[in-house]
Amino acid sequence: MIRIGIFGYGNLGRGVEYAVKQNPDMTLTAVFTRRDPANVKIAAKGVPVYSASEVLAHKDEIDVMILCGGSMSDLPVQTPELAKYFNVVDSFDTHARIPEHFSNVDKSAKEAGKVGIISVGWDPGLFSLMRMYGNAALPVGSDYTFWGKGVSQGHSDAVRRVEGVKNAKQYTIPVESALERVRNGENPVLSTREKHTRECFVVAEEGADKAKIENDIKTMPNYFSDYDTTVHFISEEELERDHSGIPHGGFVIRSGKTGENGRNTHVMEFSLKLDSNPEFTSSILTAFARAAYRLNSEGVSGCKTIFDIPPAYLCAQSGEELRMHML
Amino acid sequence: MIRIGIFGYGNLGRGVEYAVKQNPDMTLTAVFTRRDPANVKIAAKGVPVYSASEVLAHKDEIDVMILCGGSMSDLPVQTPELAKYFNVVDSFDTHARIPEHFSNVDKSAKEAGKVGIISVGWDPGLFSLMRMYGNAALPVGSDYTFWGKGVSQGHSDAVRRVEGVKNAKQYTIPVESALERVRNGENPVLSTREKHTRECFVVAEEGADKAKIENDIKTMPNYFSDYDTTVHFISEEELERDHSGIPHGGFVIRSGKTGENGRNTHVMEFSLKLDSNPEFTSSILTAFARAAYRLNSEGVSGCKTIFDIPPAYLCAQSGEELRMHML
Repeated sequence: MIRIGIFGYGNLGRGVEYAVKQNPDMTLTAVFTRRDPANVKIAAKGVPVYSASEVLAHKDEIDVMILCGGSMSDLPVQTPELAKYFNVVDSFDTHARIPEHFSNVDKSAKEAGKVGIISVGWDPGLFSLMRMYGNAALPVGSDYTFWGKGVSQGHSDAVRRVEGVKNAKQYTIPVESALERVRNGENPVLSTREKHTRECFVVAEEGADKAKIENDIKTMPNYFSDYDTTVHFISEEELERDHSGIPHGGFVIRSGKTGENGRNTHVMEFSLKLDSNPEFTSSILTAFARAAYRLNSEGVSGCKTIFDIPPAYLCAQSGEELRMHML
Repeated sequence: MIRIGIFGYGNLGRGVEYAVKQNPDMTLTAVFTRRDPANVKIAAKGVPVYSASEVLAHKDEIDVMILCGGSMSDLPVQTPELAKYFNVVDSFDTHARIPEHFSNVDKSAKEAGKVGIISVGWDPGLFSLMRMYGNAALPVGSDYTFWGKGVSQGHSDAVRRVEGVKNAKQYTIPVESALERVRNGENPVLSTREKHTRECFVVAEEGADKAKIENDIKTMPNYFSDYDTTVHFISEEELERDHSGIPHGGFVIRSGKTGENGRNTHVMEFSLKLDSNPEFTSSILTAFARAAYRLNSEGVSGCKTIFDIPPAYLCAQSGEELRMHML
């Protein structure tokens, strides 16, 4: 049994807790939280909740620590620090800072003889893999990534910061006609506006100027001004009833040419339709915990990404079983 | 530069020839054929064509031999034999015989200190990978594979063997309504007939009994009797004009549940739409030739499948470049 620890118990941590139960070769050993452990209720029976500050006392009880903090300020510190004592897996998703994070985790993990797998999830993660397989299979071609339909936390937060807004949810929606052009192998050049639209569901504070709120949202630089945005005003009850989920998804498409004078076109498409973005990310983190454990058992150390992991390391079955049933 | 040899020059071998040109870190060194080399015209300028019987004389000139023969009788003999002298990649696709083929290639390759990657292509191949990533990410769920729309060589051959048939092409077509049910996360149990239909374009011999031909096709066991099949009679000219391509494709869908009482559903879908089945397979073979070369350069030997290859080994870029631009 692979002994799993969860570090950070929010949406992602809860998702890992359920995911571990779906993997018969894993057991949840402990949950670590920065809150008062006495106030953290977890679903698993008999699994202890410890203070994050006591984590080192449990280093021999855990084979892989799954880090469930945020990419902004938690993971840049926690992953390199915990990689000194544990095999770790994280979902660090700030694309621009991945090289720096990789280097920090690599240093800690190599010194400690541990494995750290970073930036695991679906983007970065499975979507990155699909871009890579697409580029490998069709070196002459174009890549397209569309996100949605789904809730963007960053954009929802941005709307909530607008004056007069009490609460809000923002959906990112791929433009169907753009998707169709890509699928047809047209290789279009698409502007930001042509790829996605944005839809906001806003609860206004009483007496707020709705026209001003709508205008403030639609003209917000970086977040909305480059998109066609729709704003709907709804009640707090409607927001709670119809928009409390965290669905997401998207599409990675590689379109390329082969043969004499590139006369043949091929289109590879990968898509996700997720009821719960954090639970799906948690499930992938859990599969990669297995890979971290196996690699480390073979004497491997250092930082890895999803690009470095042989796919078979993600599955509990033996090579023979996989060749027999899945190849 | 990775020096590539092509063993067998049919549709697949020609596809590899074009694919090598799309990969700037590769060069085509030689083509080997069982025909008289004097009668084999290849597209690449200045690349020698040798008799297959002389292959061993060139063993130090080639880093990876890409085997382009058939799975029925060529590859079961050729891959284990050539793995004694070369790093090899093949597209062996008889699912039931993969364990035996793996073991034969593994023995030769290990003794010779070479790498043999077998069953590379899209099914087995990329589709197998997608089934594996799907199972890893969503351990509680169902797998679906649909093929088409595309030309099935085996079924076209079967139609050609029917009495009174001069020539024929058979298309396998996924049933759109079944695809939709799977995409909706319904997890349906689908019979053979519910998943695919079959469409035949037949050139009858002069004076042949068309009603009998149609009945013979539709009732043919294993190939057609379990499907809804449509038969169209056309002229030789129409067959040549409208059905000379070898398109194919398909869909791999994993649908699974996560979270408390499995309340959230997720759907992962991978699809291919290929103008030329052999050219796309060739392109994948070529990418895996790079992996065979790199693994062997690191001292690895033995038989591998697509499950064993870290994705990064397929791309010419360094780990740093990949993390920067593709993760």
